[in-house]
Amino acid sequence: MATQANSVPYPTLVEVDPFVPADQQKGLHNRWHPDIPAYVTVKPGEVFKLQCVDWTGAQIGNNDYSDDVKNVDLTKIHNLSGPVAVEGAEPGDCLIVDILDVTPFEKMPWGYTGIFELENGGGLFAKEFNSKAAKAIWDLKGIYATSRHIPGVRFAGVSHPGLIGTAPSAELLATWNERERGLISLHANAVPPVAFAPEPIGAYVGQDIDRKVFEKIAAEGARTVPGREHGGNCDIKNLSKGSRCYFPVFLKGANLSVGDLHFSQGDGELSFCGAIEMAGIITLSTSIIKGGVEKFALKQPIFLPSPVDPLYSAKLIFEGISVDYHGDGKQYNMDATVAYKQAALNAIAYLMKIGYTREQAYLLLSAAPVESHVAALVDSPNACVTLALPLGIFEHDILPKEEGLKKLNFGQCAIRSDGVV
Amino acid sequence: MATQANSVPYPTLVEVDPFVPADQQKGLHNRWHPDIPAYVTVKPGEVFKLQCVDWTGAQIGNNDYSDDVKNVDLTKIHNLSGPVAVEGAEPGDCLIVDILDVTPFEKMPWGYTGIFELENGGGLFAKEFNSKAAKAIWDLKGIYATSRHIPGVRFAGVSHPGLIGTAPSAELLATWNERERGLISLHANAVPPVAFAPEPIGAYVGQDIDRKVFEKIAAEGARTVPGREHGGNCDIKNLSKGSRCYFPVFLKGANLSVGDLHFSQGDGELSFCGAIEMAGIITLSTSIIKGGVEKFALKQPIFLPSPVDPLYSAKLIFEGISVDYHGDGKQYNMDATVAYKQAALNAIAYLMKIGYTREQAYLLLSAAPVESHVAALVDSPNACVTLALPLGIFEHDILPKEEGLKKLNFGQCAIRSDGVV
Amino acid sequence: MATQANSVPYPTLVEVDPFVPADQQKGLHNRWHPDIPAYVTVKPGEVFKLQCVDWTGAQIGNNDYSDDVKNVDLTKIHNLSGPVAVEGAEPGDCLIVDILDVTPFEKMPWGYTGIFELENGGGLFAKEFNSKAAKAIWDLKGIYATSRHIPGVRFAGVSHPGLIGTAPSAELLATWNERERGLISLHANAVPPVAFAPEPIGAYVGQDIDRKVFEKIAAEGARTVPGREHGGNCDIKNLSKGSRCYFPVFLKGANLSVGDLHFSQGDGELSFCGAIEMAGIITLSTSIIKGGVEKFALKQPIFLPSPVDPLYSAKLIFEGISVDYHGDGKQYNMDATVAYKQAALNAIAYLMKIGYTREQAYLLLSAAPVESHVAALVDSPNACVTLALPLGIFEHDILPKEEGLKKLNFGQCAIRSDGVV
Amino acid sequence: MATQANSVPYPTLVEVDPFVPADQQKGLHNRWHPDIPAYVTVKPGEVFKLQCVDWTGAQIGNNDYSDDVKNVDLTKIHNLSGPVAVEGAEPGDCLIVDILDVTPFEKMPWGYTGIFELENGGGLFAKEFNSKAAKAIWDLKGIYATSRHIPGVRFAGVSHPGLIGTAPSAELLATWNERERGLISLHANAVPPVAFAPEPIGAYVGQDIDRKVFEKIAAEGARTVPGREHGGNCDIKNLSKGSRCYFPVFLKGANLSVGDLHFSQGDGELSFCGAIEMAGIITLSTSIIKGGVEKFALKQPIFLPSPVDPLYSAKLIFEGISVDYHGDGKQYNMDATVAYKQAALNAIAYLMKIGYTREQAYLLLSAAPVESHVAALVDSPNACVTLALPLGIFEHDILPKEEGLKKLNFGQCAIRSDGVV
Repeated sequence: MATQANSVPYPTLVEVDPFVPADQQKGLHNRWHPDIPAYVTVKPGEVFKLQCVDWTGAQIGNNDYSDDVKNVDLTKIHNLSGPVAVEGAEPGDCLIVDILDVTPFEKMPWGYTGIFELENGGGLFAKEFNSKAAKAIWDLKGIYATSRHIPGVRFAGVSHPGLIGTAPSAELLATWNERERGLISLHANAVPPVAFAPEPIGAYVGQDIDRKVFEKIAAEGARTVPGREHGGNCDIKNLSKGSRCYFPVFLKGANLSVGDLHFSQGDGELSFCGAIEMAGIITLSTSIIKGGVEKFALKQPIFLPSPVDPLYSAKLIFEGISVDYHGDGKQYNMDATVAYKQAALNAIAYLMKIGYTREQAYLLLSAAPVESHVAALVDSPNACVTLALPLGIFEHDILPKEEGLKKLNFGQCAIRSDGVV
Repeated sequence: MATQANSVPYPTLVEVDPFVPADQQKGLHNRWHPDIPAYVTVKPGEVFKLQCVDWTGAQIGNNDYSDDVKNVDLTKIHNLSGPVAVEGAEPGDCLIVDILDVTPFEKMPWGYTGIFELENGGGLFAKEFNSKAAKAIWDLKGIYATSRHIPGVRFAGVSHPGLIGTAPSAELLATWNERERGLISLHANAVPPVAFAPEPIGAYVGQDIDRKVFEKIAAEGARTVPGREHGGNCDIKNLSKGSRCYFPVFLKGANLSVGDLHFSQGDGELSFCGAIEMAGIITLSTSIIKGGVEKFALKQPIFLPSPVDPLYSAKLIFEGISVDYHGDGKQYNMDATVAYKQAALNAIAYLMKIGYTREQAYLLLSAAPVESHVAALVDSPNACVTLALPLGIFEHDILPKEEGLKKLNFGQCAIRSDGVV
Repeated sequence: MATQANSVPYPTLVEVDPFVPADQQKGLHNRWHPDIPAYVTVKPGEVFKLQCVDWTGAQIGNNDYSDDVKNVDLTKIHNLSGPVAVEGAEPGDCLIVDILDVTPFEKMPWGYTGIFELENGGGLFAKEFNSKAAKAIWDLKGIYATSRHIPGVRFAGVSHPGLIGTAPSAELLATWNERERGLISLHANAVPPVAFAPEPIGAYVGQDIDRKVFEKIAAEGARTVPGREHGGNCDIKNLSKGSRCYFPVFLKGANLSVGDLHFSQGDGELSFCGAIEMAGIITLSTSIIKGGVEKFALKQPIFLPSPVDPLYSAKLIFEGISVDYHGDGKQYNMDATVAYKQAALNAIAYLMKIGYTREQAYLLLSAAPVESHVAALVDSPNACVTLALPLGIFEHDILPKEEGLKKLNFGQCAIRSDGVV
Repeated sequence: MATQANSVPYPTLVEVDPFVPADQQKGLHNRWHPDIPAYVTVKPGEVFKLQCVDWTGAQIGNNDYSDDVKNVDLTKIHNLSGPVAVEGAEPGDCLIVDILDVTPFEKMPWGYTGIFELENGGGLFAKEFNSKAAKAIWDLKGIYATSRHIPGVRFAGVSHPGLIGTAPSAELLATWNERERGLISLHANAVPPVAFAPEPIGAYVGQDIDRKVFEKIAAEGARTVPGREHGGNCDIKNLSKGSRCYFPVFLKGANLSVGDLHFSQGDGELSFCGAIEMAGIITLSTSIIKGGVEKFALKQPIFLPSPVDPLYSAKLIFEGISVDYHGDGKQYNMDATVAYKQAALNAIAYLMKIGYTREQAYLLLSAAPVESHVAALVDSPNACVTLALPLGIFEHDILPKEEGLKKLNFGQCAIRSDGVV
């Protein structure tokens, strides 16, 4: 018969409390540095769980104002669980990581999507919209999310770690810092900044380590904001539960870290904190292919997507080209970023016709399983990018109709307590 | 009983011979201009067919050398069928176009994918590869394409018009010409050019029109290379047979033109002539929504994709960021184009490990139903773009294996008769 | 350049006129018998086309009465194109057939779905409905079908040959005839008949053959109605264009025949002539695996489905169990046929709530890409079968709503000129 | 900030211990009867959780022998959690149930699939195989299942309640009992039995109820084995997490009960205990449509499937007809059950060619996300049913090859300790 004795749960190697600030907890860190010691070690083939705080480390609350978003302390992000060393992994190997599951905590069945202030965090349209803080709280109901701040939609999550990567070697870290400092120096005083240099303030390693080592990490550690050659904050929505990822290994043990769990996200994650951010639990297993970097020409991770990502076959697709026709009309040269922006702004304009506010639309496109394709990147001077809105997530029929679109009243998302939008 | 009398085929409104140069045929044109008269007129609801030459107008042959690609005359492209006026369409309306079918000619069951010379046409990696002309001929066997120049793959086509659009108004045309001339002036002498100004040489309108009108068209007509607000050469692979597209109308009658039929294409169409280019037949029907531009906030077409696009659920996905790590290592600022390039170069490197030449890999990624997503566009400074290779198109298992990848001999694609690659 | 000389169309090995009675045409036959000689011979690897009349051989017209269905002569069906011998195929081999394309004739862009009379053809609900002849004519518009007889729907076809198979050996034919005669003798005078014994009247072989051979074929030839070990009239909607099928070979040359082309069909094909029946063209290629019957344990064909079958992810699913609760309430023992019927009758009842007549609903479920799954076949005494209606085929939202279903007026399908339904 | 106070977990309304026999626990019952009182009451819109024991109530263990299956006590099944009354539900209403999630217990990350003895439980091939007890234990690793007893496969679960339904009215219960007793009387002494009459032995209601009421329930309560008009044990794999189901209501409060959770199941669930049976947690919410039975013509539940069911697009499909060619060759009359069996036996024969034992193949087809379609049910006398094996679940390529199939050694599943298979 079924007994406790013949039922062995998978071990939880990092335990956290999602309601406690991250910098008071063990097994977390928020910079990339080769000197951050492995917090735990696993054997290839082992299944294990890591608990993760949300990326901000409990800074955002389940309430109806966005002041917490306005005042978020970004020196403290992203909070990652790990590092996890894998026995036998060596530089040049390929670390296979099976992302077996990604779930919220049972005790915390909600997440959030935020629009950040132009001056604190930014986002794709920070300048265009002169962004003020706003947010939507999502209730996570099994496979679905709904929001009191964005009524009229319900969608299945494509749950994934926004951030997962192996630790850089000292050489790789130096390369990152050098090239990013170069960019910063070209755009000094940009608002929002174009990149983030190492920042000792807010740096955290949730282990008992030598003070000098910590100071080195804090001084040199790469910020976690961008994705890089090791993976990192790639925010790829399809790196979801069920996917198998192949990482290059740069250090003995590989030292995998993970965090920034997303219940759902659209391609592009456009509002920066655009996914449904959540605290939760990730289940992983690993294996190693010796010399895999050379075998597979790995300059950055590759992966096999999951068989269980949400399938919404009916879509309304918006197009954009590399002309800023939503702004000053400027012609860009094969710029896929500009093209993406036009497609997104076309979608936002459409969603406003059916009654969403600009902020609701911006949040919705960021969080829902929206797909964005690079359609064509060769027809000079116009890159063409598309953005596909799944129709099945809406409670109402939003298709173009002879009589035009029906404008409903969906209220507003959570905004600042001073009412500024 | 079934009789000829009770069977009415859909009318073919433009008839062409795919083996005759385009500028000897009626119902074709190769510039955008409001003064190009409608070649035919249809009523809303009518189903009709348009025959189309391939985009070059029969310049490329089914043979094993790429000299025809090397010497292609690009002043003569793209050859479009139409314009088709729709009764009742007026500026500000939305023209619904149902793309009901896209097929090759029965008498011409082949197409081609080309890499163009750096100096004549370019392509996404024209500079990186210092491109020399190369091509692959594809045999079109019902829903599938195979190529003697790229053995080991077979895939279902996502057949679509690379180019479809309504005619611009005089004002819109002026806007296009002005902004593109501005870009050209910033990059004078760029190779390949960043954009294409109006070019009287090669301009063609396959109708009996007044000489002065023709000269105006030739002098002012926008080139067909980029997609623009009216649609045009968007090269969106999912604007495929079965899709429904909503176009803004700028002129009385809308004056729809279409061409550049593709049997298949990957997202990005990276080698420029990267689709499987074909001559063929497109079946359309139209309807009109009065005032649709305002009703749907249409700044560029929107569309509903087809229910019959190829479905290959198993994929190998490559990632790229906006650092040119395949080149000089330069850090770019949220540049999705650079990120796309890295993802594509990672895929090419992988395909070379299994035995394809660089040129075969470049052509294959361009032509096969590859999907490219803008994963994240907010993690400064690195945009992240993915490129997904469908596994089901390969005859062999190409997954990463413990023992590495098996390198087969797939020969080479068609190259120049002087052997330069 | 592209020339006629470098463009070789695939050969058409059987040519027919869809407007001429089948028994006046070459290359057709309507019985299964090993002595029907190959009409043409192909080499493995060759791509070729076969033209096919509709299954009845032009008996049904594009008009608004169903008298032709009422009076259809079923001794003359199904009209098959072939046989096609494949060089090198021998008994015990596996014949691989790639179904590369299935299209209607350009000159005949329509098809039909019929309900047959109880006394002439039957159908799944022939007795329950005491069926009278009815039909729907479908306009085939590229990938889509619509019908003036069933307004409010449009769907993409999953086009396939309803009937495709290799010729039986004499031994296999004898087995068929014996077992089916046995069944007939158990149900003498059943209306409709439970099976069809060889029937010399109406037998046809469109080749110049010896009179005696013909008489033998007519006397012994198996009727084409049921699918059997060689494939035959399996009416599997997913054996569609793009699929690859593995047939057992029973005769030297394999002698493949094909016909009964369907533009679309739902799982079950419930009204008997339930697919969208059409005349058209099938494109095939073949290859041989020696000894494949033993290698793959082939007692009946196996196949790989197509990557381009229509994808409608949103569905409304009906359930049925093996209790005839739509009839006399009788409890059956694990009878999947009874369970299927209840699911279908539940769907018909639902469709009647939104305004379709019983006959329209019956025809629609037969012809549209409806999916029917055997859910459970082990929970004694109730088999459970489901039937899934794709929501994307309807112009209106048909989901269950608080306020109930909106009943529209969709008129009626084509019925008998005497008005009897 | 995120706090415990602003995080409200969903309530668990039935709590069970999966390691304790079901008949020692509260909130469980194993018969259908209108007099079983509601165990809990919910309001429409509320999200809640129910814990469920596995269907046998802890009778089966995670070990390598099948003696527990051999000796299973089937008078005690299925153990259901509930009933849950919904405020406001009345006979004739439609109860909407959103199945929001279905997960195993974290402390019990395994499930099992069993072949039952011919004399104790049976299964689709109980007679054909003269079945002896066998089983496979599955490790549940996030979204995937693997088994030490069936090596070489890994698949994503389509997790669902095998059994979910509203309570019958007294009238409906009487109808069930009468019609099933009728069937039993026609097949007295059948092994396995054709149906199960009310059975006081083993009957259980985990509430403090009046002895007389309990005795009535035990004497009259319908067994839970078959699905019926209220839903019940339908074993529909696509009634999975994310689906929305519409149930008819027969009693005030509706009295919903649920159990028999499956991590995964193939269409047909052919070995009877063919799903991956598990204990676990189901998350639900409900709403009511007044008079929905009439509004939607509900004779049995209808449902909308989930957007996150596993998608394996590449499949190998087997066919079957209603001739018992794997047995005595008998011709049946349009019997979909017989046709399903042939398709399944063809698949088993194929899997044996690649090295699985008959028992492993039988278990695998039962548990993996196999799809079975009723292809055609109108071609007298042969029903045609297909069974599709997803290729992506196999570690090896199992496609038909020129050289035949590679036979590997996969050992054997768990069998009886006396070694009898």
